[in-house]
Amino acid sequence: MRHTSLSEMSCPIARSLDRVGEWWSMLILRDALRGVTRFDDFRRSLGVAPNMLTRRLNALVEAGMLERRRYSERPPRDEYIPTARGRDFRPVLLALLAYGNRHFAPEGPNVEIVHSATGIPADPVLVDRRTGLPIDGPDYRTVHHAPKTPLPLPLGEVGARQRSG
Amino acid sequence: MRHTSLSEMSCPIARSLDRVGEWWSMLILRDALRGVTRFDDFRRSLGVAPNMLTRRLNALVEAGMLERRRYSERPPRDEYIPTARGRDFRPVLLALLAYGNRHFAPEGPNVEIVHSATGIPADPVLVDRRTGLPIDGPDYRTVHHAPKTPLPLPLGEVGARQRSG
Repeated sequence: MRHTSLSEMSCPIARSLDRVGEWWSMLILRDALRGVTRFDDFRRSLGVAPNMLTRRLNALVEAGMLERRRYSERPPRDEYIPTARGRDFRPVLLALLAYGNRHFAPEGPNVEIVHSATGIPADPVLVDRRTGLPIDGPDYRTVHHAPKTPLPLPLGEVGARQRSG
Repeated sequence: MRHTSLSEMSCPIARSLDRVGEWWSMLILRDALRGVTRFDDFRRSLGVAPNMLTRRLNALVEAGMLERRRYSERPPRDEYIPTARGRDFRPVLLALLAYGNRHFAPEGPNVEIVHSATGIPADPVLVDRRTGLPIDGPDYRTVHHAPKTPLPLPLGEVGARQRSG
């Protein structure tokens, strides 16, 4: 199921979601970024139907996030390698990982990101590379430029928003 | 369409995706975090069918990310307010925003996060709050604990992974 209308939205979140395609696509990218390259290995890891996996792999190749490479001529077999654009998706997955650990791991995290030297678990926070300040804070706000596509859909004020609830 | 099997996976990414539910859920959260609270305003912003919107709002309430509050008895009307758990999802959306701007905004970004004082666009990077170092780098790795749920699905080495492609 594609939500093609999303691609026409000017919101960059909507566009990212549209290109990545489906939950399965994020999990395929997760596996690809840990080194899985072959169809059968993706299938085993995800327990997903072959036709669904084929569709999702094709969509990720079309979106420029995976590159298809033939590794065997007889029988014909391809592998799927993350491109620079695919590797750049890792922060989104790490943010989802941190969120899952904080909110949906009542028995304690199964997967953790730790500082290699000390083994201390990381406490991930999104900051501005230039200032080192959290962008999810009062020092930052969202700016909307004049939309160049037909369906403007702004994110709204991030930093200045009042907390309710 | 629910991927119930995902919820049984021990991977925190899969769990997050399972709870948030669908693309629409992420866009509903985006709108909720910029202050949208009412059904008709979500519907107008997203252009989504009412029955789909009702299902997604109910799922986000069940997941503990939105809270339902009655604001009118006659006629009966509810509004939807982000909980602390819902607000904590903002870094995922900001990571998706940054990704969309970098890769899917050939005409230039429509929405940008800027430093309020200077107006300089932020360059978002995920760091460890304790060390200030990027967790998407060689100083960090992923550790897998003994899974406590039936379907282990590790993320794999993040920091130590070799780049291919």
